[in-house]
Amino acid sequence: MVAGQVDWTFYLVTDQRWLGGRTLWDSVEAAIRGGATVVQLREKEIPSRDYLDLARRVKAVTDRAEVPLIIDDRLDIALAVDADGVHVGPEDLPVAAVRRLLGPDRIVGASACTLEEALRFQDEGADYLGVGAVFPTATKGGTESVSLEQLRRIKAAVRIPVVGIGGITADNAPAVMETGVDGVAVVSAVMAQPDIGEAALRLSALLKKGAGR
Amino acid sequence: MVAGQVDWTFYLVTDQRWLGGRTLWDSVEAAIRGGATVVQLREKEIPSRDYLDLARRVKAVTDRAEVPLIIDDRLDIALAVDADGVHVGPEDLPVAAVRRLLGPDRIVGASACTLEEALRFQDEGADYLGVGAVFPTATKGGTESVSLEQLRRIKAAVRIPVVGIGGITADNAPAVMETGVDGVAVVSAVMAQPDIGEAALRLSALLKKGAGR
Repeated sequence: MVAGQVDWTFYLVTDQRWLGGRTLWDSVEAAIRGGATVVQLREKEIPSRDYLDLARRVKAVTDRAEVPLIIDDRLDIALAVDADGVHVGPEDLPVAAVRRLLGPDRIVGASACTLEEALRFQDEGADYLGVGAVFPTATKGGTESVSLEQLRRIKAAVRIPVVGIGGITADNAPAVMETGVDGVAVVSAVMAQPDIGEAALRLSALLKKGAGR
Repeated sequence: MVAGQVDWTFYLVTDQRWLGGRTLWDSVEAAIRGGATVVQLREKEIPSRDYLDLARRVKAVTDRAEVPLIIDDRLDIALAVDADGVHVGPEDLPVAAVRRLLGPDRIVGASACTLEEALRFQDEGADYLGVGAVFPTATKGGTESVSLEQLRRIKAAVRIPVVGIGGITADNAPAVMETGVDGVAVVSAVMAQPDIGEAALRLSALLKKGAGR
């Protein structure tokens, strides 16, 4: 799937730490049934072989649902499983390098905290931006914060889709959508819930309302 | 550089833990001046951006010396710096996947502990094998051991070059070369020495003697 075909509204980011005994692939499947429109597999500090095995299992789920799969950080894993794209943050490969290596037909996403970064990553070839942290978050420590007003300004300044990320829940998602962004990225608001499908369904309903659909 | 052009005799594997205050790139340069014929950059558990930055600096050194640079594990880093190849162990991407993604013109190396693995990785497209641990080693914990006799049998059974690895020093390198292998891979025997260039020079002299040159 190319970037222009993606529905960015409900961007699920995985995190195995929240799952308890549930498998990642079952959790992703439940979230997609609940309405997730795009999935980012994010793993840190696991061996490449384990990342590959996880990516293959999650890819089977996203393929069945025809939802795009984006791999965090690891371009090699993305190529190995033929994922739709790669998302990079400040500690990952530079946006320009990922664009060059992936070619024009896969999705490149970048994390941005400031307007300057957002414009630079757009110039370097990013297809979309994850901007945050909009709210304090337990998932990532030490991330710079971005106010709703800054998020609105960044969205207005770039041509590419923007998703808000960081501490977004069903409670605050409508306020994030009101800034004009194309979607919200969530981790624990879905993955940490006892009923992942139910949590996804609830968030999805709010996002559709927020997007005026 | 393609695999057929590589001199496998003195295969240096990096390890920043041994360097004290010295930089990795200066250490690699000294080892090459001392006679290292191929370099593998091996880093674990560092962010992708840091691995990339290190790889770029080491690539500048190996390019100047016209010595091939192989990246451990990370195919994405190898592609980003245009390295000569990728080396994979049991926790990394599978040999067949790396061969498919790198194409025929880059080097694919694999770690093997048994004859069965050696033959399988050869079939899957490996250009050379690192076989060991020949001697106990402080660099990698828990690696299976391979006797000199097993090393000799593996070398005799495969068509591709074999380097012995694991606990190899100037003292035991001649015995390893006598098994008929194409070279030895060393980490601390060079990188942990107070004078890296001198240690490399000494090992290089022994290896040339062992190879009958």
